[in-house]
Amino acid sequence: MTKVKLDEIDHQILDMLIDNTRTPFTDIAKKLLISAGTVHVRVKKMEESGIIKGSSLTLDYVKLGYSFIAYVGIFLEKTHQTKFVLERLSQIPYVTVAHITTGKFNIFCKIRAKDTTHAKNIIFKIDDIEGISRTETMISLEESINDKRRLMHTIFNEL
Amino acid sequence: MTKVKLDEIDHQILDMLIDNTRTPFTDIAKKLLISAGTVHVRVKKMEESGIIKGSSLTLDYVKLGYSFIAYVGIFLEKTHQTKFVLERLSQIPYVTVAHITTGKFNIFCKIRAKDTTHAKNIIFKIDDIEGISRTETMISLEESINDKRRLMHTIFNEL
Amino acid sequence: MTKVKLDEIDHQILDMLIDNTRTPFTDIAKKLLISAGTVHVRVKKMEESGIIKGSSLTLDYVKLGYSFIAYVGIFLEKTHQTKFVLERLSQIPYVTVAHITTGKFNIFCKIRAKDTTHAKNIIFKIDDIEGISRTETMISLEESINDKRRLMHTIFNEL
Amino acid sequence: MTKVKLDEIDHQILDMLIDNTRTPFTDIAKKLLISAGTVHVRVKKMEESGIIKGSSLTLDYVKLGYSFIAYVGIFLEKTHQTKFVLERLSQIPYVTVAHITTGKFNIFCKIRAKDTTHAKNIIFKIDDIEGISRTETMISLEESINDKRRLMHTIFNEL
Amino acid sequence: MTKVKLDEIDHQILDMLIDNTRTPFTDIAKKLLISAGTVHVRVKKMEESGIIKGSSLTLDYVKLGYSFIAYVGIFLEKTHQTKFVLERLSQIPYVTVAHITTGKFNIFCKIRAKDTTHAKNIIFKIDDIEGISRTETMISLEESINDKRRLMHTIFNEL
Amino acid sequence: MTKVKLDEIDHQILDMLIDNTRTPFTDIAKKLLISAGTVHVRVKKMEESGIIKGSSLTLDYVKLGYSFIAYVGIFLEKTHQTKFVLERLSQIPYVTVAHITTGKFNIFCKIRAKDTTHAKNIIFKIDDIEGISRTETMISLEESINDKRRLMHTIFNEL
Amino acid sequence: MTKVKLDEIDHQILDMLIDNTRTPFTDIAKKLLISAGTVHVRVKKMEESGIIKGSSLTLDYVKLGYSFIAYVGIFLEKTHQTKFVLERLSQIPYVTVAHITTGKFNIFCKIRAKDTTHAKNIIFKIDDIEGISRTETMISLEESINDKRRLMHTIFNEL
Amino acid sequence: MTKVKLDEIDHQILDMLIDNTRTPFTDIAKKLLISAGTVHVRVKKMEESGIIKGSSLTLDYVKLGYSFIAYVGIFLEKTHQTKFVLERLSQIPYVTVAHITTGKFNIFCKIRAKDTTHAKNIIFKIDDIEGISRTETMISLEESINDKRRLMHTIFNEL
Repeated sequence: MTKVKLDEIDHQILDMLIDNTRTPFTDIAKKLLISAGTVHVRVKKMEESGIIKGSSLTLDYVKLGYSFIAYVGIFLEKTHQTKFVLERLSQIPYVTVAHITTGKFNIFCKIRAKDTTHAKNIIFKIDDIEGISRTETMISLEESINDKRRLMHTIFNEL
Repeated sequence: MTKVKLDEIDHQILDMLIDNTRTPFTDIAKKLLISAGTVHVRVKKMEESGIIKGSSLTLDYVKLGYSFIAYVGIFLEKTHQTKFVLERLSQIPYVTVAHITTGKFNIFCKIRAKDTTHAKNIIFKIDDIEGISRTETMISLEESINDKRRLMHTIFNEL
Repeated sequence: MTKVKLDEIDHQILDMLIDNTRTPFTDIAKKLLISAGTVHVRVKKMEESGIIKGSSLTLDYVKLGYSFIAYVGIFLEKTHQTKFVLERLSQIPYVTVAHITTGKFNIFCKIRAKDTTHAKNIIFKIDDIEGISRTETMISLEESINDKRRLMHTIFNEL
Repeated sequence: MTKVKLDEIDHQILDMLIDNTRTPFTDIAKKLLISAGTVHVRVKKMEESGIIKGSSLTLDYVKLGYSFIAYVGIFLEKTHQTKFVLERLSQIPYVTVAHITTGKFNIFCKIRAKDTTHAKNIIFKIDDIEGISRTETMISLEESINDKRRLMHTIFNEL
Repeated sequence: MTKVKLDEIDHQILDMLIDNTRTPFTDIAKKLLISAGTVHVRVKKMEESGIIKGSSLTLDYVKLGYSFIAYVGIFLEKTHQTKFVLERLSQIPYVTVAHITTGKFNIFCKIRAKDTTHAKNIIFKIDDIEGISRTETMISLEESINDKRRLMHTIFNEL
Repeated sequence: MTKVKLDEIDHQILDMLIDNTRTPFTDIAKKLLISAGTVHVRVKKMEESGIIKGSSLTLDYVKLGYSFIAYVGIFLEKTHQTKFVLERLSQIPYVTVAHITTGKFNIFCKIRAKDTTHAKNIIFKIDDIEGISRTETMISLEESINDKRRLMHTIFNEL
Repeated sequence: MTKVKLDEIDHQILDMLIDNTRTPFTDIAKKLLISAGTVHVRVKKMEESGIIKGSSLTLDYVKLGYSFIAYVGIFLEKTHQTKFVLERLSQIPYVTVAHITTGKFNIFCKIRAKDTTHAKNIIFKIDDIEGISRTETMISLEESINDKRRLMHTIFNEL
Repeated sequence: MTKVKLDEIDHQILDMLIDNTRTPFTDIAKKLLISAGTVHVRVKKMEESGIIKGSSLTLDYVKLGYSFIAYVGIFLEKTHQTKFVLERLSQIPYVTVAHITTGKFNIFCKIRAKDTTHAKNIIFKIDDIEGISRTETMISLEESINDKRRLMHTIFNEL
């Protein structure tokens, strides 16, 4: 897995887009004293190399009626079912994150639901996937931090 | 916590921006057979109501040299230290997510690191926060799903 | 799940019945300076809306020879058996409470028995229900609090 | 702890009151072919002996806005604090049941709350009681059985 | 389960035999100022009522080459196999104690072995009994107390 | 720890006394075709070498009103308190067995009590010993095997 | 298992070879004031008796690209599969140590891998061995001690 | 941590020394059709680069009277004590391996002892190190695999 080489200008461009993906390239250009074309070329290059995989809106889940978050630890019957189970999980849109993990769980995932009853139904749907023997659920009482920008700024500063 | 009322047009706008936040408003307008001004007004309204909290790039952590993910469960000495500990956690940029949870942990967080040694140092930094009595770490062997778009599309469809 | 709207008078009626369901409506009426007919009408309305589901005696289980209480955590083979297992549990009268839960158990229930040997037999009966893979039992050494009145008074006061 | 001796008539009276505490004594008398005075005398006797501790309404918590149930396991710093902690717990009206238990917890209690945030506040209040070192919470996704009548009928039949 | 009624003389006889089962009845008689025949009659009576189930030597296991003690917790596949498994356990002489228990194990037993390798073989023999799904072993590093006499003296004093 | 050398005759003597410590030496002598004096000499020798540590009655605890058995796992604050804690445990006559163990507990002991309430008091007394930080209790629902004779016969046969 | 008798000279020879197996026998001879032939004879004798099983290089795993260490606890379906599973484990070269253990695992082994992804593949290979029902992994963040020389010197000094 | 570059010849030299560190360089030279001087130079180079850290004898612990192996999981009071505790552990020669780990333990180590009693004393010595709050021990019933040669051959083959 080759790390991509980025220079100082790239970092500064990313640093600005991280906070607002819709920042016009002309604004970035002005700030960095380069041409808008350069910004365009470099962003394109970073997209092609796969560093930038895309962009997305940060929405307020609570305002959209989704205030319930749970982490679900999954025990498989056999590890060779991992791939199959992950595919089935990815068909449940309420599963927003899933990891293959060490420790007592085989797979560990995060779900977002409307309320307790909705969560129960989602967990039941997960439990019914072939190959899953048991699940354990941990419920979030508050999502206190969910922010990858601090990490991104740190990465760009230390590069 | 009041849910915001969105109409069909709003959903379709969000549905397009979710996949690419840089989609020009004129493109959205053309597709939905409305004016670009209307798109602009509605996006602004959704930003002001807090539904849209911002936008961010989706970067490839592995290509940036951050291939190590771990979940850290935190036991506090006393729960009234929760707020204080969360503030201290938010000063560690490698902590990208943190929840107050039910079950055996008081706080549950996600960290991203470069490798095993880096992870060890981050975990030690967490362990040294005043008020934390012990931590347990679960290491991700693979981040198989990390995608909130499927959820967003589902939410807009069911609204 | 629509919450029912109750007014001040309703709360005061409930507040009195909570402590003694046999309080004559005339006594309630006198205290609230309303007619007994009004009390009657309102109680009926609350019964019809489902707020009042019924009334029951609070008996002394120990004096009736039932001094043994245990909590039984149930692991199912598959979650889709939940409904079936709950139906079978509801046929065992010694199971007075049962919940579908998060965490390590699928179902969590409370049993009342005469003594250790009786408890053993009840647990064995539960273990033998089809679909249950294992159970874990936690025994109560003393039921120190069992009182929903304090909660009820609080609810009526804050409404 | 002396068990109280009840005869066949007592059982039948209890059996009827269990289902509806407001059943008029005259109805009970008619059904059992005894005088209403006898019913009155016997109920009084059972109240005085402590068998009947009172009566209460069965309300619909969900309709009252309390749809969240959790079980909280409490670890004490020292067991001699048990009494003190139970007294403090009994001042929190949302704690409806509490047991001294065997197994990993010292005290095990049941709480009813409005929602996740409310539950968090109640758990924090419990955590802050002096003498409590840690708590673990298990959340109910559905209260499937909560019915002591079946047990009561069984007790009266087997007596 | 009827408790047997014993009088003061019975207690004193038991109290002496507890410490040395071979104490001649004439010695007991002299000490208690009763006839040896009375001692004989009372011991017989206690044997017939089942209070005295027998007598046994207290041997030094270490000197006999059995210095290894372990506790083995057994998980059954199904509880209805309990009786069958206990019968099979009772055919393994190294299993000296076995209980049906609450908590995470179905059966909990104590084994005595010569050394680590011998223990391994005994545990494997237990694991292979049909109906046992898994076992967990806890090894004794020292048997610090193994004495039922203190309890017996206490029982006789409080009777 | 030197193992004592016993010959065939010694084994046969022990084998008979194991089942009934009061078997007259003349009976043993007759069966083994040796003199009663020889039996006497050999038993004495085995007592002096410490092989035979004494003898005790096997009483029926249930008939004596002690039907409640529990295993208590003890966590110490510090292991150097082990000796001190064991001394304090040995002053509680209801603690009939105690081991220093591997695994999660520091000390593991067995208690016999009259009933749930008595057990609670004993456990509280244990919890209050200085140096003990926490205990976990596992309750016996039935003592199915408690017999060291089978082991003894096996030992003598294999010697 | 007979312990081999070694004398003072043997210990001193081992003590020198432990630190550097390539130490010429003439150097050892000079230091101990014996002939090189004697050293040769004694080393041969210790090899034949099995005390010395061989010699090996201590390489730097990290410099060889193997910086990832994990401990894997294995749960078997049935203990009689232990031997078979161990044979299969010994065909995976990344498993450098394996024990049959007490406690919750049946087999406990140590693996060395290149990185997280490599470790995942090794763990999946282990999980797929017939007879293994589940595994739990604990990851090493740093191998702080790996040194048997201190033990060896201690053994030779105390012999 | 730079990986060292080794060529085909280096691998073959290591491959032979791995199985017997005392293999004369002349034998290696003959087999690889190179001069003994070349072997010497290359081994020296690998020692200087740190790839070869030394060599050691593989002794038979059981024949040396050390047949008892245990794994000890250590919980620290605070992680910043890790370094200090590891230094103290390295002064106990019976601790042959120690890791800083993820999961429930802070440090995980392996000890070798003569027997149960010796193990108890070693564990007590560990428990008494300042900064250690608790330990859990898992005992090995058999060391079935302990062999790093298979791994080494694999590494050299794949390089």
